[in-house]
Amino acid sequence: MICKHVEALVGYTPGEQPRDSTVIKLNTNENPYPPSPRVAECVASFNTEKLRLYPDPVFLEVRERIAQIHGCSVTQVFVGNGSDEILALCTRAFVENNGSVGCFDPSYSLYRVLAEIRGVSCKPVQLKPDFTWNMPAEYAADLFFMTNPNAPTSMLHDPAQVANFCLSFDGVVLVDEAYGDFADQNCMDLAVAAGNRNTLVMRTLSKSFSLAGIRFGYVIGPEGLIAALYKIKDSYNMDMLTLKIGLAALNDLEYMQRNVSRIKASRAEMTAALRARGWKVCDSQTNFLFARPPEGKAQVVFDYLKQNKIFVRYFPGPMTGEYLRITIGTEEQCAALLVALGLCFEIDIYAPLT
Amino acid sequence: MICKHVEALVGYTPGEQPRDSTVIKLNTNENPYPPSPRVAECVASFNTEKLRLYPDPVFLEVRERIAQIHGCSVTQVFVGNGSDEILALCTRAFVENNGSVGCFDPSYSLYRVLAEIRGVSCKPVQLKPDFTWNMPAEYAADLFFMTNPNAPTSMLHDPAQVANFCLSFDGVVLVDEAYGDFADQNCMDLAVAAGNRNTLVMRTLSKSFSLAGIRFGYVIGPEGLIAALYKIKDSYNMDMLTLKIGLAALNDLEYMQRNVSRIKASRAEMTAALRARGWKVCDSQTNFLFARPPEGKAQVVFDYLKQNKIFVRYFPGPMTGEYLRITIGTEEQCAALLVALGLCFEIDIYAPLT
Repeated sequence: MICKHVEALVGYTPGEQPRDSTVIKLNTNENPYPPSPRVAECVASFNTEKLRLYPDPVFLEVRERIAQIHGCSVTQVFVGNGSDEILALCTRAFVENNGSVGCFDPSYSLYRVLAEIRGVSCKPVQLKPDFTWNMPAEYAADLFFMTNPNAPTSMLHDPAQVANFCLSFDGVVLVDEAYGDFADQNCMDLAVAAGNRNTLVMRTLSKSFSLAGIRFGYVIGPEGLIAALYKIKDSYNMDMLTLKIGLAALNDLEYMQRNVSRIKASRAEMTAALRARGWKVCDSQTNFLFARPPEGKAQVVFDYLKQNKIFVRYFPGPMTGEYLRITIGTEEQCAALLVALGLCFEIDIYAPLT
Repeated sequence: MICKHVEALVGYTPGEQPRDSTVIKLNTNENPYPPSPRVAECVASFNTEKLRLYPDPVFLEVRERIAQIHGCSVTQVFVGNGSDEILALCTRAFVENNGSVGCFDPSYSLYRVLAEIRGVSCKPVQLKPDFTWNMPAEYAADLFFMTNPNAPTSMLHDPAQVANFCLSFDGVVLVDEAYGDFADQNCMDLAVAAGNRNTLVMRTLSKSFSLAGIRFGYVIGPEGLIAALYKIKDSYNMDMLTLKIGLAALNDLEYMQRNVSRIKASRAEMTAALRARGWKVCDSQTNFLFARPPEGKAQVVFDYLKQNKIFVRYFPGPMTGEYLRITIGTEEQCAALLVALGLCFEIDIYAPLT
């Protein structure tokens, strides 16, 4: 009774969410700082009697604010129950049953899983060994997912390069700017541009706005593509209170930007500190580092940190297996990580565990 | 760039959500009473700093409570971003690309749209003219959606009949008990039964729990089918605060049941009042009536009520076009509706509008 391709699926493994609150959690790129005080006010003053009614199915109020922020029309804005929902909708709106989804390798590991869930082929493009841009001349797919800045590498693909790719590509390109607020440049202009026929740019409130707990992502692009997403979405995909919280956060960009600045300062310090200790650290344009410990024994360092209640992320595999992905935490968490790493290299962590 | 079947789609039209708060809104089967006071407490005491973290992707706490309520294991429980998400997931987990979705006609009009979105055929089974059970001997489909009590008819299919159907049916049966709490009987036993291989029973917090504003539905069934839904869901499909609110409501069943009793009392009064005025009213096991005004001129009454700021629902078509679907409101709203209908029949509303 279950579809064959679903039976065969392994599914996506999100980063661990430990119940132990003493863990230093640097494994899922959450923001270490709380959301805007306006979020707290919004929740505290919310009249829960309103919850008996359905939310606005096309969430006009929130779309108006997003359109204002990015200088586009409300018909160019779609809001999803997290960016994840938007990605999944794209695989159903823009990829026929015999079609294909493209993405870089390494990149966000969910993309492959989404192609599998959709039952279509995935056509990954391997980045260069230093994780920089690579694209075969004759490459084609129906939909290309591009995280930019990329994850887990933390590096930014040059927006000019992205723009050229979008121009020449026949399918739909979704630029996933989950980490866009932490970068020096972004691709939102491509989504908003008058002549744009195929480029969607997506944002989330999960990272820079400190709101991973509510599910709120949005995407901007050409009216026709956006209208296709509205046609196939669940009738009421967004929670009433989530919409209010999202709006409150989007009305306090200054607060978000101050948090981002603080994280970028920690990012610079952490990068310098690790490099001074012999690590290879990619130039991060995100709220995390992708870093190779001395001798590349990432798995050993990962295990050591975990034993010491510091969770980071490790992706086995030929391209990524010598690296760790480390979320930028608070100043205190960063310091604790450096202390642990110092101890980790003083004792012989590379000796086999007994 | 857009899939052919998506281009061809019209999409589902939810009932109107007027911005004018003076409207008496009896068009989307919302509960006229607010949710449990525990919901208000839960929201007021919620620490929004937690929203910086991702929610539990498999929402164990809420599943434990649901399993306790229905006497099943947590591995038999799936929670969705509204029942809508669960319905859509089922079309992808249990229907191959060349497969089919079944449902009754008339029933919840979304089912046809979901089959169209999935790009598979819909095989509706026409109920008898009095809206009672009908099933051709050789009927087959991969997935059958059955609202029970049915909407828009408000009538309950006998659980014994449903059980027989599930036994003989080769595909998956999803019994959509959105209105189950308003009925004298339900089919939850079928979902929980040890030998169950193909039956899912779904509930929502939108109706009896007065929580349409949050998106919270759940489904119970055999472990294997439930596991398939987990495999293909979005990684974090449920909002952290939504899960908390849902749990608060599920921890106060008594409050819900008191509201349900109140609505059932109004339902009995409204049914009697309309029948006394010459309406044909189906025996409702839901929080709404499906009722045929004298002479069957439902569209005219619908328009008259709308002009008088009372919104009900009208479904054109051969089976339903002589009926109106009227949500049971508060006692005051029910009285206002009867007054309006009285006026409506005193003046000659059947005369052409000028």
